[in-house]
Amino acid sequence: MASPAPKESNVDVLIIGAGPAGLMAACWMAHCGVSARIVDKRNTKIFCGQADGLQCRSLEIFDSLGFADRTWKEANHMIEICMWNPGADGVIRRSDRIPDTIVGLSRFQQIVLHQGRIERFFLDNIKKYSKDSIKVERGVLPESLEIDTSKVEDDAAYPVTVKLRTLTEEEATPAQQQTGSKGSDGLFRSNLTNEDDEDDLIRKSKARAGESEIVHAKYVIGCDGARSWTRRSLGLELDGEATDFIWGVMDIIPVTDFPDIRMRCAIHSASNGSLMVIPRENRLVRLYIQLKEVTPDASGRADKSKITPDLIFSAAQKILAPYKIDYEYCDWWTAYQIGQRIGNSFDAERRVFLAGDAVHTHSPKAGQGMNVSMQDAYNLGWKVGLVAKGVCKREILSSYQSERRRVAQDLIEFDQKFSRLFSGRPAKDVMDAEGVSMEEFKDAFLKGNMFASGLSVNYGPSSIVVKPGDAAEQGDGSEKTKKLVKTHDLSLEEFNKKQALASGLPVGMRVNSFKVLNQACARPWHFQERLKADGRFRVVLFAGNILSPTQKARVEKFCALLDAPENFLRRATPEGKPIDSIVEVLTIHSAKRTETELLRDFPEVLHPFDEKLGWDYNKVFVDDESYHEGYGDAYKNYGVDSERGCVVAVRPDQYVGWVGELEDFGGLQEYFEGCLVLK
Amino acid sequence: MASPAPKESNVDVLIIGAGPAGLMAACWMAHCGVSARIVDKRNTKIFCGQADGLQCRSLEIFDSLGFADRTWKEANHMIEICMWNPGADGVIRRSDRIPDTIVGLSRFQQIVLHQGRIERFFLDNIKKYSKDSIKVERGVLPESLEIDTSKVEDDAAYPVTVKLRTLTEEEATPAQQQTGSKGSDGLFRSNLTNEDDEDDLIRKSKARAGESEIVHAKYVIGCDGARSWTRRSLGLELDGEATDFIWGVMDIIPVTDFPDIRMRCAIHSASNGSLMVIPRENRLVRLYIQLKEVTPDASGRADKSKITPDLIFSAAQKILAPYKIDYEYCDWWTAYQIGQRIGNSFDAERRVFLAGDAVHTHSPKAGQGMNVSMQDAYNLGWKVGLVAKGVCKREILSSYQSERRRVAQDLIEFDQKFSRLFSGRPAKDVMDAEGVSMEEFKDAFLKGNMFASGLSVNYGPSSIVVKPGDAAEQGDGSEKTKKLVKTHDLSLEEFNKKQALASGLPVGMRVNSFKVLNQACARPWHFQERLKADGRFRVVLFAGNILSPTQKARVEKFCALLDAPENFLRRATPEGKPIDSIVEVLTIHSAKRTETELLRDFPEVLHPFDEKLGWDYNKVFVDDESYHEGYGDAYKNYGVDSERGCVVAVRPDQYVGWVGELEDFGGLQEYFEGCLVLK
Repeated sequence: MASPAPKESNVDVLIIGAGPAGLMAACWMAHCGVSARIVDKRNTKIFCGQADGLQCRSLEIFDSLGFADRTWKEANHMIEICMWNPGADGVIRRSDRIPDTIVGLSRFQQIVLHQGRIERFFLDNIKKYSKDSIKVERGVLPESLEIDTSKVEDDAAYPVTVKLRTLTEEEATPAQQQTGSKGSDGLFRSNLTNEDDEDDLIRKSKARAGESEIVHAKYVIGCDGARSWTRRSLGLELDGEATDFIWGVMDIIPVTDFPDIRMRCAIHSASNGSLMVIPRENRLVRLYIQLKEVTPDASGRADKSKITPDLIFSAAQKILAPYKIDYEYCDWWTAYQIGQRIGNSFDAERRVFLAGDAVHTHSPKAGQGMNVSMQDAYNLGWKVGLVAKGVCKREILSSYQSERRRVAQDLIEFDQKFSRLFSGRPAKDVMDAEGVSMEEFKDAFLKGNMFASGLSVNYGPSSIVVKPGDAAEQGDGSEKTKKLVKTHDLSLEEFNKKQALASGLPVGMRVNSFKVLNQACARPWHFQERLKADGRFRVVLFAGNILSPTQKARVEKFCALLDAPENFLRRATPEGKPIDSIVEVLTIHSAKRTETELLRDFPEVLHPFDEKLGWDYNKVFVDDESYHEGYGDAYKNYGVDSERGCVVAVRPDQYVGWVGELEDFGGLQEYFEGCLVLK
Repeated sequence: MASPAPKESNVDVLIIGAGPAGLMAACWMAHCGVSARIVDKRNTKIFCGQADGLQCRSLEIFDSLGFADRTWKEANHMIEICMWNPGADGVIRRSDRIPDTIVGLSRFQQIVLHQGRIERFFLDNIKKYSKDSIKVERGVLPESLEIDTSKVEDDAAYPVTVKLRTLTEEEATPAQQQTGSKGSDGLFRSNLTNEDDEDDLIRKSKARAGESEIVHAKYVIGCDGARSWTRRSLGLELDGEATDFIWGVMDIIPVTDFPDIRMRCAIHSASNGSLMVIPRENRLVRLYIQLKEVTPDASGRADKSKITPDLIFSAAQKILAPYKIDYEYCDWWTAYQIGQRIGNSFDAERRVFLAGDAVHTHSPKAGQGMNVSMQDAYNLGWKVGLVAKGVCKREILSSYQSERRRVAQDLIEFDQKFSRLFSGRPAKDVMDAEGVSMEEFKDAFLKGNMFASGLSVNYGPSSIVVKPGDAAEQGDGSEKTKKLVKTHDLSLEEFNKKQALASGLPVGMRVNSFKVLNQACARPWHFQERLKADGRFRVVLFAGNILSPTQKARVEKFCALLDAPENFLRRATPEGKPIDSIVEVLTIHSAKRTETELLRDFPEVLHPFDEKLGWDYNKVFVDDESYHEGYGDAYKNYGVDSERGCVVAVRPDQYVGWVGELEDFGGLQEYFEGCLVLK
């Protein structure tokens, strides 16, 4: 009997893989109101182990989505890094303490919480914002992917066809859940595993008939990990290689006399290898342990079968001696071989995109992997979502590779340096050229801290980042970027003049956060809290001293242009929708709060009126002192002249896209003409 | 056919009424692990209207339970109070701005969120902590209550028998839900309603057979509102009377040009009455509107039938003139007649207790009602729970009336003064003796702000508050308190000497919060965050300068006594349970964090060892500077000598019970012998 014809359907965005990157992408679709599906081949989310470190930037992103508070509350907060090195006698001792997060960098600091909880927060958020319409479909495997290249530039088309198959429960259960070992074994996802569990799934699945469906998608996002099926089905590969360094990882509740077990520690023993301590929630501690006794074979791969929790833990005990360490409870363990690989292409036809481990892998110890993966999807999600909705032009999609491949390249460079310094034997003295200088290591750590915050990212020029220079040079350097990324025409001199208007808001970087007060109710807000991830671009009008008649005239002139039917704001707004649907205008002024009044001093377009809801009281803010939460000094911190102000365009992901004078309405208009579909 | 014999069962604590007070009581039972049931005659929780203001102290309490963050995030934050009065021309103008919460009083400020959300947070919290074992049983009505007085002093007995009846859906649905009016009409719960909806329920219910059950309880807590069935079944009454002042309340989304509509405003018009503006979440604003045109009849009661939303709103429009106000959306409205009433007795036989509106009523405008009601139950819940569990002696139950009836008396006094000043016509000039002086009103507001924070509560002496003086005099003054509340023997001179050891921790007041760092991981915590509502008493050891040998010897001597098997800590701990099960010892020292080490410098009893979990890293804190969150200066703020320290006993509800020297172990021992059941 022939199997029935598979079900067919259309969807705007299909996301493959429901780890942190895939969930981040789905989150954007929920917040932007885009029709989307997300499938994962496994039948449960993970419950322990995996990645756990969260950068400041990841927390800022979570806050833009609405769940930083849950994460912050449950996580372990890492405050201090202690460096331990051998003394002259070869015995380890604490040589340094440095703050784990650079002071003043962000309103958040680095924290640790296991991936399972983070996925839970994503799932709850997606459920809430999609009104239950986007749900992770688990135990669903993609079997084929085709792009109809004749339709890729057609905005109305669904040019990607993916065949999906629903697995049986048994097929979809990963080995971790099936073994039922005391401490969950994470090797099934380790890069030391030889059998490809996914291939195995596909093999098993092929033996069955039925339960297939055909999905036609406008866009596909592959977030399916280091062995990405999506990547392979596009014929793309990762370049790079493994090192000889092999490390074990264990999540345990330690019983120890080591004094800094609740600090993040970087420990170099004299000759037994290195160890990193990452204190976690629920009395757990993660240990990253160098396995000097395990070495790769002729093929360059370590023999997985030799690696056991006992082997890993006895290595840890040797490194920590003379301190004693033991444990009764192990939550999870794994091992990995350090290596760095990156994809040449992050998308195919700007219709199928790859994010996270699917396009770059590196060692987990630096605590970057999950962060960079989620940030890939945070960069990509709104672009795909708004293009699929018809709000943005397809051109903006090219900036994904130029922006994120650059970050992946930086990460790999950082990881290589850091891994070498951390896996190397400490130098006995200055003459010991083969050993690693502990001074150099500390220095790399301090510098790495800036990188590791996620806040040093500075995107190169493109249609959505107005700055001078070559898109490829400042981006990922690829031919693709050179060919596809359009930039605005702007001399360095012109740009420097514009940038000087808001020196604390560098074009290409994320909007830093300082406290401002709501003009109407005096409530203090971190300004970033007003830049929610709802898919809207924002114009931030630094209105300056609104009580000066000269300045007020400038503001009124700017607002008249903003409000004019022929300009971008009205043309971007769909018929019958509120004026802030696509681009929201937020104002920060610098006059005294108590001397200004919303309705009297600010043009209507800055606080739009609605017949049913009255005036909008949530759009105008003031840089003034609060009663209970100090003074944010926003104008000073943003480097904006408090008399004359300036105008800033902010992307939906909180990155600065454009800076200009109030008189430079033309520049602002050009910015939005470059990225928005206008009536 | 005879109906079958009703089901019978035992429960430690039965709570009648699932409003904020009842839910608070249930929350304690969940956190203390006490078997409890909570019943409510209505079949749904409320969804709009009702009380909404939250004091600083209520937020501190929510934080001790674990949901202050949810409340803080959703609520509207009230920052400033604007006073509006008639000028010489009789037209209202802003005369003053004052901060809504006194600066520096608490880490929280006053906020507004409607009761329905607060009840939701309670329900989620009860579900989590009781592991789903305590659920509100809705549509359940008590029909009879009997106390077997021969057994009231027997700890093992269940002397209270309550007959419960499950209502039909129709019976249990309050009028609010049934009418389906545009704005929900809150009059069904207003004190202007003549028909008693509860009596009506009982009448209907009696007509049916079956569905009854008999519950034998150790303790009953009646939180069933102003017309409390529990109170009436005990034969107790409220004393007090109504005034002539009648007010309306409306929750609307205003469309207005009044500039301070997002501020809390107190507005006195020249001759049209007064109005209070309370901005709320979701663009709502609550208006409290004086209804000068409605007056009580001969019986002293206003005619409910005259009061409509139009009447209330047109009064508001007159008061606010020349500003315009209108609305399209009304969420809820009601009206009430100002009056204050209080019960003479807050319990019967220390077996059945009354809390909240069941024993005191007053006008809602001061935003105190829900707060004081919840705080009644926060005071009572742990006492009942720990006595029911056999942890505490029954004696402590007497302090409920002495402590909380005093607070209710103070509230009524505050409300009377505030209502008179707010409902009165503003004085035209200093010669206008009948008018209310606006200076006097502002002054009352400023003073009221301290009271209204909930932080000025100072409990009188009892077995759990060691201070000198007369329990009745400092408490509610009743004969009952005089007879039942035992106090410790202590001269004023002795007490002053003890209190001087921690001048910022007054005995009888709540522990204020300053930031301290965890010794082991350097994480800053507000110290109050470590005083969770888990039913444990706490000994806070201010260990002083632990690096001084003299001081270390004092600490070691104190710890040796603490750890001795014959003293309270070991004797309070049940066989086989961790040493911190009943009384938790927390340490704050004043040496430099980086010069001290947990395992080296602090006796084991301060960071107990467990074979499976290792050392406890969450009990020792340091008064030192943090990297990211400033310096809490805890010793200075608590008024404790940073060299010598002191010892403080803290009740499960965060109130200071005892202060003494490290050498005064006898005093500490006596404190716990007075309230705990020791082996």
